Amino acid sequence: MTGHVYLVGAGPGAADLLTVRALRLIERADVILYDALVTEEVLALAPQAKKVPVGKRGGRVSMDQALINRLLVSTATKHELVVRLKGGDPMLFGRAHEEIEACVQAGIPVSIVPGISAAFGAASALATSLTQRGLSRSVTFVTPTVARGSQASPAWAKAVAATDTSVIYMGRGDAVWIRDSLIDLGMPATLPVVLAENVSRPSSFTVKGPLSDLPDLAFKVGSGPVLMMIGEVFAGAEVDVEVLGVSPTPVGMVSSAKAS
Amino acid sequence: MTGHVYLVGAGPGAADLLTVRALRLIERADVILYDALVTEEVLALAPQAKKVPVGKRGGRVSMDQALINRLLVSTATKHELVVRLKGGDPMLFGRAHEEIEACVQAGIPVSIVPGISAAFGAASALATSLTQRGLSRSVTFVTPTVARGSQASPAWAKAVAATDTSVIYMGRGDAVWIRDSLIDLGMPATLPVVLAENVSRPSSFTVKGPLSDLPDLAFKVGSGPVLMMIGEVFAGAEVDVEVLGVSPTPVGMVSSAKAS
Repeated sequence: MTGHVYLVGAGPGAADLLTVRALRLIERADVILYDALVTEEVLALAPQAKKVPVGKRGGRVSMDQALINRLLVSTATKHELVVRLKGGDPMLFGRAHEEIEACVQAGIPVSIVPGISAAFGAASALATSLTQRGLSRSVTFVTPTVARGSQASPAWAKAVAATDTSVIYMGRGDAVWIRDSLIDLGMPATLPVVLAENVSRPSSFTVKGPLSDLPDLAFKVGSGPVLMMIGEVFAGAEVDVEVLGVSPTPVGMVSSAKAS
Repeated sequence: MTGHVYLVGAGPGAADLLTVRALRLIERADVILYDALVTEEVLALAPQAKKVPVGKRGGRVSMDQALINRLLVSTATKHELVVRLKGGDPMLFGRAHEEIEACVQAGIPVSIVPGISAAFGAASALATSLTQRGLSRSVTFVTPTVARGSQASPAWAKAVAATDTSVIYMGRGDAVWIRDSLIDLGMPATLPVVLAENVSRPSSFTVKGPLSDLPDLAFKVGSGPVLMMIGEVFAGAEVDVEVLGVSPTPVGMVSSAKAS
């Protein structure tokens, strides 16, 4: 037999932020292969399904992507409705491409169901629009995990510097590098930054401060998934903790002082 | 009395791409103020609600934003559960900021419920991840409707040029300007572009071709909402109609030949 694989976005965490389409598939799934970012609240919607953790969280032991691909294919040869559940939206930083390819090559039908990416969950929770007339007409989502430690201006930083509002995914461990790269490209040290942890979950936590304080802000959040949201639109965002602006420091000084 | 206003994302169009939270509010709403982008399929979920169209679609007669703000506030003084339903996600190109401000100033509680922005609906339908290892680590959403006709490199174009994958919202009428601005900034004339119309709806239509052909691609879509999706990740996207690459033409030539 050949089953059908659905790559399904689990959204940021709250079960009622699943799409209706995602919920129906989760409730009917024979097997669910899920990432570490998928919450218990979402998994509890599928008491009927066999649930297989395959994630993947920075720092922990995790399954190799090639192994996940093979497991997905072999599961679909034994079960009818296979849900591959990914945090947020499967098409943003989800390595969906590789899993789709593996299914296609094995002749297994695959469909994708979008999800609420954490940036949108955070914007709603902060009551702060990512775009605003006169302030922001562009929004960029990046991850800085490639070329870590490179000294030249990295591509992800140029993308952030060219955009009004940015959301950095999976940046927690690189706060110093991110702050320095962006300030080196001319972004103001006083630009508002919000760190949003555990978006949409009971344990959600937000902290705001100036870009120059990004490493300090990163110390204030816990071990949950964190977004770094950067841009003037966040100036008025109401957060749990606000770090008041540091005294104005020449751009070059901020980088070297904090990095040492 | 004072009601509660919910700014709710209606997603790209298919009713089952609403979040569960959005569906529950729509089913309970006393009044729904909705944009032109919200589909009949979604509105049909609220037979109990008084439905007021307030949108807003390029070219048609539409309600002034200040009038929408006032209507939202006055509706919330007469009804308990007021849903302001917006296509896609309310926090991306939705002018949510102005409506939230109006409610806050009037002392009306307001909450926001995220939705699937059309870019994610399109990525799922195209089975094409917006990010891909080795190919794209950044995604930008922009709209080119400000500074139209400006000759210098516009900010939105710089954001697109600095990013691996871009999605242009509300760009239909500016295809020549978009093509020329991006090629002037050094983006390859052969870069794949997908135009996605009526994402997630029965009338959905997609067409792909090289960036140099963007104005011709824009002629091939109908009058529904259209996304322009740009980047190497779309090279393999399966679309309804594919325009084969034009013969390689020097960058400067493409701009002037097409613009004349």
